[in-house]
Amino acid sequence: MNVASRIAKDYRRGNDIVVVLSAMGKSTDELIAKAMDINPNPSKRELDMLVTTGEQVSVALMAMALHLLDVPAISLNAFQVAMHTSSNYGNARFKKIDRDRIRHELDARKVVLVTGFQGVNKYDDVTTLGRGGSDTTAVALAAALHADACEIYTDVDGIYTSDPRIVKNARKLDEITYDEMLDLATLGAGVLHNRSVELAKKYGITLLLCSSLEEVPGTVVREDTKVEKMLVSGVAVDKSADRISVIGLADKPGVAFKMFDLLAKKNINVDVILQSIGRDGTKDISFTVSDGDADESMAILEENRELLTYKEINLDRDVAKVSIVGAGMMTNPGVAAKMFEVLFNEGININMISTSEIRVTVLIDSHYAERAANAIHDAFIGED
Amino acid sequence: MNVASRIAKDYRRGNDIVVVLSAMGKSTDELIAKAMDINPNPSKRELDMLVTTGEQVSVALMAMALHLLDVPAISLNAFQVAMHTSSNYGNARFKKIDRDRIRHELDARKVVLVTGFQGVNKYDDVTTLGRGGSDTTAVALAAALHADACEIYTDVDGIYTSDPRIVKNARKLDEITYDEMLDLATLGAGVLHNRSVELAKKYGITLLLCSSLEEVPGTVVREDTKVEKMLVSGVAVDKSADRISVIGLADKPGVAFKMFDLLAKKNINVDVILQSIGRDGTKDISFTVSDGDADESMAILEENRELLTYKEINLDRDVAKVSIVGAGMMTNPGVAAKMFEVLFNEGININMISTSEIRVTVLIDSHYAERAANAIHDAFIGED
Repeated sequence: MNVASRIAKDYRRGNDIVVVLSAMGKSTDELIAKAMDINPNPSKRELDMLVTTGEQVSVALMAMALHLLDVPAISLNAFQVAMHTSSNYGNARFKKIDRDRIRHELDARKVVLVTGFQGVNKYDDVTTLGRGGSDTTAVALAAALHADACEIYTDVDGIYTSDPRIVKNARKLDEITYDEMLDLATLGAGVLHNRSVELAKKYGITLLLCSSLEEVPGTVVREDTKVEKMLVSGVAVDKSADRISVIGLADKPGVAFKMFDLLAKKNINVDVILQSIGRDGTKDISFTVSDGDADESMAILEENRELLTYKEINLDRDVAKVSIVGAGMMTNPGVAAKMFEVLFNEGININMISTSEIRVTVLIDSHYAERAANAIHDAFIGED
Repeated sequence: MNVASRIAKDYRRGNDIVVVLSAMGKSTDELIAKAMDINPNPSKRELDMLVTTGEQVSVALMAMALHLLDVPAISLNAFQVAMHTSSNYGNARFKKIDRDRIRHELDARKVVLVTGFQGVNKYDDVTTLGRGGSDTTAVALAAALHADACEIYTDVDGIYTSDPRIVKNARKLDEITYDEMLDLATLGAGVLHNRSVELAKKYGITLLLCSSLEEVPGTVVREDTKVEKMLVSGVAVDKSADRISVIGLADKPGVAFKMFDLLAKKNINVDVILQSIGRDGTKDISFTVSDGDADESMAILEENRELLTYKEINLDRDVAKVSIVGAGMMTNPGVAAKMFEVLFNEGININMISTSEIRVTVLIDSHYAERAANAIHDAFIGED
């Protein structure tokens, strides 16, 4: 097993090693499918109880693989480490990680294999951090243990200027800052979970993102990159966004707050928001949510029609977010304007715009997504 | 789901219900196969970590099934209940079961679903009770919670006078005593795990063994059965026994002890023992072990050849144990003699004999097992 022998090599160099593992292959999806077969709307608590078995299988099997290589290894689940999280099932956050058990095993020169993605809340119940949470577990452990390095192994070999499946000239970055990575992660680059990057930034943990399949240089994520700051270091495409438009809201204070509060209470993340100027005592608000939250969002809005006093709501699934991200943008005005020009030249209409200091996001029709991303990538980053 | 709706019915009658679940179908075997693929000699600790995920999947899915029937249910694993066991992985025993969490959930009128077969030891590691351990979990919980009843659901509908696949006239018993059941379980009747019966006897828990597939009367296991005591209540056949013969041991005190002590230290259960009378300063000892322990037993004896000073050791896999069990035997001499006569009339040679107050066991060639069991059953129990 490739990963086991890599761990063994690292161990023999004398390093203290803590490995965080995800569930294998499609096992999480298979467990969720089993749940849905039984109950199409399963309790989040029980879903966490179910899916966390996947990582426990991974760590136990990896321990056995390492034993075969004469590496003393021990698997630990969230209860055993005591990975304390907040209470919310399916989307918990780390509050405190006990070091004693892990330290004890490291002191006995064992490789410690920890179940990623999971924790224990104040009720002694299993929680999960949400999808992609194993990265977060790794960073949180690295911070708790004051680790020298945190390497994240995935099926890609680094962070690219854009999705190579969409943008033909996309190329791998040697280094990237936390903030750039955060924006790329949020915008659907899908390589590192944004919570893991937030945590790494907070605790100053340098991340190395590399391939679990081949030994090639990966991408380093840290505060200040040594290389010259690029104006735009990445182009992100997110086709999983859906747009919801709420038409004819009463144009008075608190209405928008009430609406977004209802969604937030159900843990629905609202992204790009566009609010029209009030007219005839009403206004329109459009915003994007991820694919998976669209139906629930619509249902919440339907249920609260009287409270929110709107005329109608629409859902548009055929939208895509295309974003440019770059720490160099902060000091370079005109980047957004250049992006809009590129889209104009391609004849692509911009539905909504959202910007931050180091990011510009546009919402466009999803069938233009590839064309837009390639044109923007060529204009800002060019060929390798 | 059949089991879920049965629980729902019981719950609606107003009962406090704690349900212990095993892993589903062949999932434990599949997990073990995965482990063996990676490491043919996996660590017992890691094997426990691996296989205990099976029950966690069961309880989570059952909770979801009950929620669909509007029954408030909550799943708990060994960590959450705090099912304290001894330290030995793969074969742990309960030491103490915390009641607080279960009581708390029952007080909130929830059906509590507990993972069977597993516990937590003093190192905070997951342990298993060995195969068939979910019965033991159920009885231990019934005792800890002072339950009114403990119902064990399996794929058979009760306890039979013998294995119906082997003995054509075997029939279901309405009631049986703990001691009879213990002997039957030990002798390979394979319905109830003997530890669960020991525990039930110790705490006076009446067991009802019944079918999970159809609602028919099962068999009650308790101290005193109301029905007339049968001379022989069951005939057990165990073809999984292997015989090991140790030839030419020094005929001096302590040698046999040393040998059985070595085996006991590896948790190998030795059964029917036959010791020859000493001759020329040496003696021979034969004993049976279960199939699964035969190779390890032989290896242990090989390793300790010098310590034990024997001439040779042999392993015979083609043996079977046939036993009769009955509380009525105690007051009826001549039962063993009648059994030997039946075997003599069938022309079946007896290799070894072992008896207790309510049991007679003979070791015979395995290809006579069916014939012996049927003849003995006809002679003592007859047709229905």
